Amino acid sequence: MAQKIRVTVWNEFRHERENEKVKAIYPEGIHEAIASHLRKEPDFEVRTATLDEPEHGLSQSVVDQTDVLFWWGHGHHQAVSDEVVNRLQKAVLEGMGLVALHSAHYSKIFKRLMGTTCALKWREAGDNERIWVVEPGHPIAEGLPEAIELEEEEMYGERFDIPEPDTLVFISWFKGGEVFRSGCCYHRGKGKIFYFRPGHETHPTYHNPDIARVLVNSARWAARVNGPKITWDRVEPLESLG
Amino acid sequence: MAQKIRVTVWNEFRHERENEKVKAIYPEGIHEAIASHLRKEPDFEVRTATLDEPEHGLSQSVVDQTDVLFWWGHGHHQAVSDEVVNRLQKAVLEGMGLVALHSAHYSKIFKRLMGTTCALKWREAGDNERIWVVEPGHPIAEGLPEAIELEEEEMYGERFDIPEPDTLVFISWFKGGEVFRSGCCYHRGKGKIFYFRPGHETHPTYHNPDIARVLVNSARWAARVNGPKITWDRVEPLESLG
Amino acid sequence: MAQKIRVTVWNEFRHERENEKVKAIYPEGIHEAIASHLRKEPDFEVRTATLDEPEHGLSQSVVDQTDVLFWWGHGHHQAVSDEVVNRLQKAVLEGMGLVALHSAHYSKIFKRLMGTTCALKWREAGDNERIWVVEPGHPIAEGLPEAIELEEEEMYGERFDIPEPDTLVFISWFKGGEVFRSGCCYHRGKGKIFYFRPGHETHPTYHNPDIARVLVNSARWAARVNGPKITWDRVEPLESLG
Amino acid sequence: MAQKIRVTVWNEFRHERENEKVKAIYPEGIHEAIASHLRKEPDFEVRTATLDEPEHGLSQSVVDQTDVLFWWGHGHHQAVSDEVVNRLQKAVLEGMGLVALHSAHYSKIFKRLMGTTCALKWREAGDNERIWVVEPGHPIAEGLPEAIELEEEEMYGERFDIPEPDTLVFISWFKGGEVFRSGCCYHRGKGKIFYFRPGHETHPTYHNPDIARVLVNSARWAARVNGPKITWDRVEPLESLG
Repeated sequence: MAQKIRVTVWNEFRHERENEKVKAIYPEGIHEAIASHLRKEPDFEVRTATLDEPEHGLSQSVVDQTDVLFWWGHGHHQAVSDEVVNRLQKAVLEGMGLVALHSAHYSKIFKRLMGTTCALKWREAGDNERIWVVEPGHPIAEGLPEAIELEEEEMYGERFDIPEPDTLVFISWFKGGEVFRSGCCYHRGKGKIFYFRPGHETHPTYHNPDIARVLVNSARWAARVNGPKITWDRVEPLESLG
Repeated sequence: MAQKIRVTVWNEFRHERENEKVKAIYPEGIHEAIASHLRKEPDFEVRTATLDEPEHGLSQSVVDQTDVLFWWGHGHHQAVSDEVVNRLQKAVLEGMGLVALHSAHYSKIFKRLMGTTCALKWREAGDNERIWVVEPGHPIAEGLPEAIELEEEEMYGERFDIPEPDTLVFISWFKGGEVFRSGCCYHRGKGKIFYFRPGHETHPTYHNPDIARVLVNSARWAARVNGPKITWDRVEPLESLG
Repeated sequence: MAQKIRVTVWNEFRHERENEKVKAIYPEGIHEAIASHLRKEPDFEVRTATLDEPEHGLSQSVVDQTDVLFWWGHGHHQAVSDEVVNRLQKAVLEGMGLVALHSAHYSKIFKRLMGTTCALKWREAGDNERIWVVEPGHPIAEGLPEAIELEEEEMYGERFDIPEPDTLVFISWFKGGEVFRSGCCYHRGKGKIFYFRPGHETHPTYHNPDIARVLVNSARWAARVNGPKITWDRVEPLESLG
Repeated sequence: MAQKIRVTVWNEFRHERENEKVKAIYPEGIHEAIASHLRKEPDFEVRTATLDEPEHGLSQSVVDQTDVLFWWGHGHHQAVSDEVVNRLQKAVLEGMGLVALHSAHYSKIFKRLMGTTCALKWREAGDNERIWVVEPGHPIAEGLPEAIELEEEEMYGERFDIPEPDTLVFISWFKGGEVFRSGCCYHRGKGKIFYFRPGHETHPTYHNPDIARVLVNSARWAARVNGPKITWDRVEPLESLG
């Protein structure tokens, strides 16, 4: 228990450099806004990585030292190399946690792990969003109110084309008439995946203290577990089948 | 496949006799409105039962001849005898389907089978309700649009204190700001349970053709399956454990 | 309900031509053994397809006319073209059922839809297998005994690296000391997937009447449902967000 | 995070006083064997309670100060008062964890929370048991081998009449031919429940270090989460429904 949880926060980091509105909200980048909350936890060790670094900042060595990977991507999913996606899929199946944020529903790594299109409905119209907690005993709900209120967010609506979550923690309500499964937990291989919906780049969502709480909780939930080493080979019977 | 699905529709049938507004909407009772849709299916055999009949119309013989039981109750859950509730629980665990409608969330039989309080938020204010399909390949979604629109309904809101459904088919949106898991599938024993949210007595919900379609689909889904006969006794080993 | 369920049974069909032992058990091929059971159902329309046909017998037109696809593959998963795999994945997500048999756990299409390695332990030693029903009210358990007994089968053992099934219907016991989740149900997109473990080519498993019953039941369970047509576009709000 | 996890270990504590064989294995009682492992964890605070104490050692005050309750009962389920069972059910639904051990499958509190018969097959014949990990990334699998080996145990076999677990962590293999879902996780209300199969009183199972590890892991997993306070009343809409 004394070991730290090693978190890597990944971000495309292009909107913030190209769009003045986004830059004004996240001057250091969305990854730094997310990392700033995680760094407050004494048991976390946090680093960041971005698309335009070599290997997108996700060399084998960085991945090997990551217990939970946060992923924020939006406009440049195709720019992520398949080599890195293969590396990440392997890492998740071997135990690395993945927290996929907002438009990461369309990232290569999330779609690869889900096996579905991950398509959804959407609208950029500043809908009011209420994120209702539907599983209040789940560790990701620790310290939250009954519903997280966001003044303005991009709308994502059902049908969200994902496998039914192992556990559904949040459902969002949008003023314009839609609902969305906003907090979805999955086991895949030895890894755990949490999809968390909010976080459009033109809204200050990652400055919200309840959202910060979810990020911290989800890192702790998704962190690597030192489970059994699995052997996949041909195996001998317990005793002669004679 | 040639055998008919034997459906029993149970209703308190008091509101419709005591309240003029309800009577105007359901002059023959809610059970007859529900049964009228089910009777159109050539493979269904439909009867009804109500609270004020002897044994609430649910004698052992009726229960034994029921493959799916629909349940609409609201104001008089405590008037249902424990003897009948015990009989129904046993029947469900032995394979009878149960479709629990609207305020049946607080019925003795539903709470008994769930093991939880089944509490929820509510508001009688004629909210507009949209029931979104979130599992479009499920047989209960057959023939439906993406969302069922109800002009006015009572609101039920999360947190709904139920076990996580085995499959979640519908999520409701309410104009006033709430969401609700509106279509919940469960296996319990050899029986199947479907909870379906809408159906407040002062709204003409059971005259809506999409709602009618859900009722028919859910009866077919919940119908008794002729699965293995289970033995619970002490058993002999396959061979000597020598 | 009058429409037939259109089933396509796919098989590598190489073992049966190359190996005398397999040929002796399945002289017409494993696909014909499977198809022979399905053809007895008056509501099924059955065709077959094999690896060495053009497009592996799975042209777009065949796939478009398939409600459930059975898949038996073992030694030649890599010989299946990615173009056909893409076509099948799209078809499943749009509603085609998939029944993946035995070593199809390592087929391209199954791994693609699961997102995991689908690895497992194995042993070819003629273990006695008992396939226990753990969800006896599930339609795939219709007409079965408590456990299906197979004299000799290849062993598959846990950890089976799959997403937790939406519903687990069977667990296998093997004499040599292993267990396996043998009957796994999934929703993916609008399609349904059933993985069913037994069926090694050197054992007469597909001639067993209980196994035949599972094949028939699973086709009926996985068959295409005419659910809502989903739109994925940007959507307008219900009314002005004012 | 600085707060300790308050664990109460409950045991019937009759076999150990009445049966010499059991007394020889568990001279201080099964509860003390279990508690001895939990007391090694610096973040746990452990007490015990037994059937023959006033209120079975489970006064309202004890329950209020319990974050996780372990339950071992076998021959005297009916001796537990309904008043205490009601108190425990309420406590679990409000957030207390419950770890139900072995024959606790038939305890009043477990059956109440499940809603099913919780029946199973059994045999006291010293079968060899192998408890396979099927979800190796789950926190309850931390530090375990691929399978826990027990030389001799009572056999429990499927069909186990429980709701499908939210997460299935272990499946047992028994030499005599049976399988069993041995590690079952549930959310109920704000509480979490873990059912763990082994632990017959005539075998030294609770002295096994892998079993001890599961007990510690499950206490940590099931511990109370400080989730949202839920209101169940009539609620006002977000704004006028006008």
